[in-house]
Amino acid sequence: MRATVIHGERDIRLEDVPDPKLSTGGDAIVRVVAACVCGSDLWPYRGISPTTHPRRIGHEFVGIVEEIGPDVRNVKLGDFVIAPFYDCDNTCANCRNGVSTSCLNGGWWGSDDSMGAFADGAQGERVRVPHADGSLVATPSPPDDALVPGLLTLADVMGTGHHAAVSAGVTAGSTVVVVGDGAVGLCAILASKRLGAARIVAMSRHADRQSVAREFGATDIVEERGDEGVARIREMFDGIGADCVLECVGTKESMDQAIRSTRPGGMVGYVGVPNGGPELPVRTLFNHNVGVNGGVAPVRSYVEELLPEVLSGAIDPGRVFDLELPLAEVAEAYAAMDERRAIKVLLRP
Amino acid sequence: MRATVIHGERDIRLEDVPDPKLSTGGDAIVRVVAACVCGSDLWPYRGISPTTHPRRIGHEFVGIVEEIGPDVRNVKLGDFVIAPFYDCDNTCANCRNGVSTSCLNGGWWGSDDSMGAFADGAQGERVRVPHADGSLVATPSPPDDALVPGLLTLADVMGTGHHAAVSAGVTAGSTVVVVGDGAVGLCAILASKRLGAARIVAMSRHADRQSVAREFGATDIVEERGDEGVARIREMFDGIGADCVLECVGTKESMDQAIRSTRPGGMVGYVGVPNGGPELPVRTLFNHNVGVNGGVAPVRSYVEELLPEVLSGAIDPGRVFDLELPLAEVAEAYAAMDERRAIKVLLRP
Repeated sequence: MRATVIHGERDIRLEDVPDPKLSTGGDAIVRVVAACVCGSDLWPYRGISPTTHPRRIGHEFVGIVEEIGPDVRNVKLGDFVIAPFYDCDNTCANCRNGVSTSCLNGGWWGSDDSMGAFADGAQGERVRVPHADGSLVATPSPPDDALVPGLLTLADVMGTGHHAAVSAGVTAGSTVVVVGDGAVGLCAILASKRLGAARIVAMSRHADRQSVAREFGATDIVEERGDEGVARIREMFDGIGADCVLECVGTKESMDQAIRSTRPGGMVGYVGVPNGGPELPVRTLFNHNVGVNGGVAPVRSYVEELLPEVLSGAIDPGRVFDLELPLAEVAEAYAAMDERRAIKVLLRP
Repeated sequence: MRATVIHGERDIRLEDVPDPKLSTGGDAIVRVVAACVCGSDLWPYRGISPTTHPRRIGHEFVGIVEEIGPDVRNVKLGDFVIAPFYDCDNTCANCRNGVSTSCLNGGWWGSDDSMGAFADGAQGERVRVPHADGSLVATPSPPDDALVPGLLTLADVMGTGHHAAVSAGVTAGSTVVVVGDGAVGLCAILASKRLGAARIVAMSRHADRQSVAREFGATDIVEERGDEGVARIREMFDGIGADCVLECVGTKESMDQAIRSTRPGGMVGYVGVPNGGPELPVRTLFNHNVGVNGGVAPVRSYVEELLPEVLSGAIDPGRVFDLELPLAEVAEAYAAMDERRAIKVLLRP
């Protein structure tokens, strides 16, 4: 089959690789219907995380179950399934606590699973899914093609935006600021709206993203950053800042923006993969009683809550995809996101 | 009047100082009935925070209202009052959010208030209280002398322990670990019990403190620290750690102990004044979805909730005082706490 391999900085290639094979009785083989490029994929692409040897890449996909091992019970051949950006058994102590990213038996796409067998990356034609019963969620019936983008967001960005909002404690009446206008930030706006936030500020400088932000429920847009951005936010909220600030980038600057935009006693919900730091300024947090909560989003644990609303059309997170390309053009997909010509690119094998 | 002045490392003196005078119409003068020494007072005492010039010290007291300005409405002459370890108006946006330590008009004992007039430290005979209506809470009637220690804990340590528990999200059925067996850590145990925690582990190596910890509701004691302590805690809780870990010390080691004892998806509630850092390890927190919440405890905001239970005897946080001395022996009070001969010392002017 064909799958995407990253060889180094700005060197993305679609290559012929071995077809995946069932490894344990709990595995499934899924034919990928749609995959995509994540903001975090841009780190190795840009050389910020070095690529020391060619490796498979991609971690978001939906598809059709083509093979299952004899122990698989929860999905069957032909099911349309959503896979989270990791595999998990969904039964261990951490999964039961809703933190399936810390599954005691889980693993990550494009690397060895907990049994030592390779699990494919997702930007390819097929993926071997370990712990298929825990990892995969089937839709009740084959979805209309127009729903595929929305369903694909449940593999990562919508669940991750939701996690930012949940981690920050967004609830009915909350005031919310979202730092970051990538696909995750936009989904964090949609998640906050869904959870009942009274006012949602999108910090964004890009007209296309501001437009999606408004559609998703942003009530205000702030273009300023740094000290000016903090001053604008404080001015909007009683001079003290917002209840909940969702950090959806992962840089020192974005975390600083988030912390300083939060009112005393408020909470930063963060899901931006911290890019080599920074460490959090404990004395500032302590003096103002600003909490910091979040992390790598346990999106599998949120699928049951969000899926019905995607299927019914109550929410349409698929709007974050503003470019669709065939898998053969995966290198262009990376370039389009890197150059901010696209918010998020959907790939069809 | 006489009041305590710190001159430098291990140099605590009771001196004659000017009597306090009303400064604004909202002030009160309170005659101190009982004060005490805080763990955080030991930092300048030990020279960890340098004392550059002699200054008044102390921030916990209860007493009798002796004078009030013409604008004071909520307390009257002769009332027995509890003062938090700061003054606050209890009406600003932050106070309304329950974060009275961030009062927009508040201040700290032993320094200038928001109007620029000096407010006395609490280890003395009298204190001028700015924002008396916001800061002071009067008991419904003069309390029995046996209740004075318990009421005094509402000025800081009981409210601070409660804040650790609330910040960590302790609720019915929570599993809790308390790092730190000082007065605040012990009160955090009592607060966790009160909030319905199912299991409470006290990390303590001192028999006297272990005994109070058990009285306050600790179900288990762990004496190990560092890697061994973490291993013991994980072993006790499904191999993954506790839901809520209350950090009541403020050192790099104690925060590290707390973070590593928390299960994925759990929360550290911290109230130990961070001793010059450390910054929080964001990647560790991110990978395990461990949140960090807390800060300087808004104890004024908790008095209404806790006071009735102290008055009724439902809780007896005053047990943390295991030594009582006359104010004249304030230097010995510091030494006894510094040398761990006492958990917490109550001072009577």
